[in-house]
Amino acid sequence: MTRAKLDALLNRPIVANAIIGVIVVNAIVLGLETVPPVMESIGPVLVAVDQACLAVFVVELVLKMIAQGRRFWTQGWNLFDFAIVAIALVPNAGPFSVLRALRILRVLRIVSVFPRLRRVVEGFVTALPGMGSVFLLMGIIFYIAAVMATKLFGTSFPQWFGDLGSSGYSLFQIMTLESWSMGIVRPVMEVYPHAWLFFVPFIMVTTFAVVNLLVGLIVNSMQDAHAEESNAATDAYRDEVLERLKAIEGQLAERGEGPK
Amino acid sequence: MTRAKLDALLNRPIVANAIIGVIVVNAIVLGLETVPPVMESIGPVLVAVDQACLAVFVVELVLKMIAQGRRFWTQGWNLFDFAIVAIALVPNAGPFSVLRALRILRVLRIVSVFPRLRRVVEGFVTALPGMGSVFLLMGIIFYIAAVMATKLFGTSFPQWFGDLGSSGYSLFQIMTLESWSMGIVRPVMEVYPHAWLFFVPFIMVTTFAVVNLLVGLIVNSMQDAHAEESNAATDAYRDEVLERLKAIEGQLAERGEGPK
Amino acid sequence: MTRAKLDALLNRPIVANAIIGVIVVNAIVLGLETVPPVMESIGPVLVAVDQACLAVFVVELVLKMIAQGRRFWTQGWNLFDFAIVAIALVPNAGPFSVLRALRILRVLRIVSVFPRLRRVVEGFVTALPGMGSVFLLMGIIFYIAAVMATKLFGTSFPQWFGDLGSSGYSLFQIMTLESWSMGIVRPVMEVYPHAWLFFVPFIMVTTFAVVNLLVGLIVNSMQDAHAEESNAATDAYRDEVLERLKAIEGQLAERGEGPK
Amino acid sequence: MTRAKLDALLNRPIVANAIIGVIVVNAIVLGLETVPPVMESIGPVLVAVDQACLAVFVVELVLKMIAQGRRFWTQGWNLFDFAIVAIALVPNAGPFSVLRALRILRVLRIVSVFPRLRRVVEGFVTALPGMGSVFLLMGIIFYIAAVMATKLFGTSFPQWFGDLGSSGYSLFQIMTLESWSMGIVRPVMEVYPHAWLFFVPFIMVTTFAVVNLLVGLIVNSMQDAHAEESNAATDAYRDEVLERLKAIEGQLAERGEGPK
Repeated sequence: MTRAKLDALLNRPIVANAIIGVIVVNAIVLGLETVPPVMESIGPVLVAVDQACLAVFVVELVLKMIAQGRRFWTQGWNLFDFAIVAIALVPNAGPFSVLRALRILRVLRIVSVFPRLRRVVEGFVTALPGMGSVFLLMGIIFYIAAVMATKLFGTSFPQWFGDLGSSGYSLFQIMTLESWSMGIVRPVMEVYPHAWLFFVPFIMVTTFAVVNLLVGLIVNSMQDAHAEESNAATDAYRDEVLERLKAIEGQLAERGEGPK
Repeated sequence: MTRAKLDALLNRPIVANAIIGVIVVNAIVLGLETVPPVMESIGPVLVAVDQACLAVFVVELVLKMIAQGRRFWTQGWNLFDFAIVAIALVPNAGPFSVLRALRILRVLRIVSVFPRLRRVVEGFVTALPGMGSVFLLMGIIFYIAAVMATKLFGTSFPQWFGDLGSSGYSLFQIMTLESWSMGIVRPVMEVYPHAWLFFVPFIMVTTFAVVNLLVGLIVNSMQDAHAEESNAATDAYRDEVLERLKAIEGQLAERGEGPK
Repeated sequence: MTRAKLDALLNRPIVANAIIGVIVVNAIVLGLETVPPVMESIGPVLVAVDQACLAVFVVELVLKMIAQGRRFWTQGWNLFDFAIVAIALVPNAGPFSVLRALRILRVLRIVSVFPRLRRVVEGFVTALPGMGSVFLLMGIIFYIAAVMATKLFGTSFPQWFGDLGSSGYSLFQIMTLESWSMGIVRPVMEVYPHAWLFFVPFIMVTTFAVVNLLVGLIVNSMQDAHAEESNAATDAYRDEVLERLKAIEGQLAERGEGPK
Repeated sequence: MTRAKLDALLNRPIVANAIIGVIVVNAIVLGLETVPPVMESIGPVLVAVDQACLAVFVVELVLKMIAQGRRFWTQGWNLFDFAIVAIALVPNAGPFSVLRALRILRVLRIVSVFPRLRRVVEGFVTALPGMGSVFLLMGIIFYIAAVMATKLFGTSFPQWFGDLGSSGYSLFQIMTLESWSMGIVRPVMEVYPHAWLFFVPFIMVTTFAVVNLLVGLIVNSMQDAHAEESNAATDAYRDEVLERLKAIEGQLAERGEGPK
């Protein structure tokens, strides 16, 4: 009983609004922490407010866990909130000092609290599986291209194609078309004049794959939108036509009992 | 009575055409002002013509205010015209000297006078609210990324990530893919070898969000176009089918009064 | 009679194929002319073949003019062919020496001879009027932005924004996002720290306008495709439904003459 | 009989899965070969595993040839597999040493084994013919532009426009908008101030052609998707309406034999 009550309490709009308020305050505080003069004058206050905000998140999360029990772990957004708060609780010292910069990720909680943003992200995520095959294909193309680039150009251009990682990064840069020619391919072509036979097809294939991802996204969204929209009016009309036809048939059958 | 007459007068095509003529003359004059030899020979004439054009705009606007009364302030395009003319009336001297360059914005008045351009801009503006959620999400992503970049790379690369503003600008540049790798990420990676773990996901997420904006725009436009187009023929057909079915039912019912 | 015969002769597939052959030969010859060793050994031959190809085009065009009479000048593709051949006949010497490079434009004649390419180009051209308003708007935006950039940054950066022409070119470069930040805006911001207030909105507005052009193109193509495709099956079905309904009504009316 | 049995054996899922396993192992081995310390310690093992994988591919391909006989050569995917394996069997020494880097292409076999990836690639390939005209047009534009650029700018800028090949590559770079202005057109304009009259229209025409390719792809995919989706429900409904109408007509005709 208390768990159901607690759950209802946590789902009241005022709680969501309060959490949004805390997130906004926390976002501002974390932003102010990047301004050195502000840190010098009111640094301790900011740190204290930040800790307080974190405390609110922890309490809310724990209450949600209690209220929802096992059900808590079955919802993606809960896991999302849990991961974000967990990052903030890892000790900041030593090898984890970079995690301090990750505290700002807490602001992402606004997405799980705000229904409209939630829907946008859910739209993004549900679009991903349909693109799975193309992503897998691009991964294969990148792996093959990285191995080839490393073998072909690695010895002469170790800064770009020295190992698989560098090659992958350089190929990603080339796929985004950033400085691909002036920055990378023209210098490579001074040593290997036929290098364009590798890079130009790579650009064409990956660009075409990206375009196909885009086309797939558009067609899917369009179908969803189209299905929803057209059904309302069309279904009502179709139902009426079929009903009227049945009525006419019924009337005819009723009267024409003789011949049958 | 005079107000209604004045309103009708201002709405006559000849007035709109005259205003368009004044705008075009003003655009040419403001363009000529950027050519030093022209300014030297006929500078005072240009300034005088410019002032005359401005006077015409002020008179037209005042007349419109009188003619439409309160109604004037409820229309977006009137506010647009008012803002443009107001900028031109701010004194050019002292701290406002940059406003001189804003006088050319007066040419934008052609948009509010020309119905076809007006419709294009209205199309742009009505598309914006549907993209509000994605814009808000991108704002949040930019804020989070700017705070992270400032904390992670600010001390070593103050020219790019020294404060929130610089980081935001640099991240905007990176989102447009301009020199992101050769110009920024490769130098950063010489100090922080794992910096790509921040920048590559940032590029992917923001690019994907931009693509989703584009997809949303296309789907919306398509639905609007589709709804308009298909209804004309389909509705006529459907109405006829239903009418004929009703007529048949009516005839059957009329004749078959006995059995009922 | 002879004119009609000539017209029929010119429209025979063998003539079109012969012209395509001449165009391909001419294209190869003009390509070979760019290779110095080839020019040294068989230069005069290439020039002679080029002249012969041109002669064929001139003869074909003159015959078409005779065959079609006034009608010749009413078709866009004829004017296109005429302009291309006319360029080749302008004397190459003196101030027109750059026109020599334009002779290769003759290869474009393949588009007017080849029906499929013709249709692609016609598709491009028919798409243009629908984009007229957006193009006009972009022209206005470019003019305004060029005047503003010249006034604001012209004195400090004459190489980029020295006059209206330079500014227009630089803004076109910025719109294509090429080196906009590292190459232009960052240097400008060292003198005018608030320059991003001009350039970032400019990029957003022009990119958004380009996106709208794209969306408009897609929606138009889709509507055309959709209209064609769906009508075949749907119209046949609708005609049958209406015919059958009329037949039923007719039968009912015929039999039920009494009550009427 | 044995051939049919062999064919059935090769089509069993376990064989496909085993081949996928071999491909993945081979991909990892070829990746590890790019890491010098790994090669030093277990290089011979990697080479041996690589040879073993290749042997499996050769055996599978030969068995397939035997099982399918002539039919083998009529399927695109078989030719694809054959080409990939054939590349690996060419001797690596001497002038073919670059082919060593092509061995990684073997990983592409995963596409022909994995049905989902196969469908994605088939989708790409079937989209190509519809774009044939636009590709041909772009080829013509590139050829014309390369000849013009070579003639106009070749003598002053041999590194970019020295011959047809260099010009074609430079124009491809310009079409991708990479460093087109800062890297190429601005330097060219210092010698030929009107060079933008060539390059800006080139960018506009090629970008517009690329956009049209994209639009065509989207419209085609949409039509395919639309045709599939809408037919299921609509066809069922239409069939029912027509059937019922025929039944009504039949009943009316049956009863009204007198008047006819």
